Amino acid sequence: MNHIYAIGIIAAILTTTAFFPQVIKVHLSKHTRDISMLMCVLLAAGVLLWIIYGLLRNSHPIIVANSITFALTMYLIYLKMKYG
Amino acid sequence: MNHIYAIGIIAAILTTTAFFPQVIKVHLSKHTRDISMLMCVLLAAGVLLWIIYGLLRNSHPIIVANSITFALTMYLIYLKMKYG
Repeated sequence: MNHIYAIGIIAAILTTTAFFPQVIKVHLSKHTRDISMLMCVLLAAGVLLWIIYGLLRNSHPIIVANSITFALTMYLIYLKMKYG
Repeated sequence: MNHIYAIGIIAAILTTTAFFPQVIKVHLSKHTRDISMLMCVLLAAGVLLWIIYGLLRNSHPIIVANSITFALTMYLIYLKMKYG
């Protein structure tokens, strides 16, 4: 594994796992007032397109990383709709 | 421009612009309680690595998209530190 590839993998892990603490925070607090619904929707749409891009390019890291982010973003949208 | 490339560009635009409504919301409301600081920090670190990855791969779309997200995330961290 070369250095550039390794940097890409670490970058993907960080930007994917970043949404876990946000989802956990909202899940526990039941407060979503300060979260932008438009951010969640744009993010979900963009990440869904990244999954399609990954499928068409047959890139497993892109598919896996964005599928996790998509699931987290959809759950955040659900929590936002539930708690307002 | 082929279809796969176009999907990647639209995906990048969506996942980058997603953070604008979040930053605008917090900027106007001055409320950041429900935003996870850990999310912001992980996102900033990951996006910074994506910029380095883009520089090493000489990929302008990756550099541009992630530089915008990095600026927005750093401003979100500043607002989070300011408003708590």
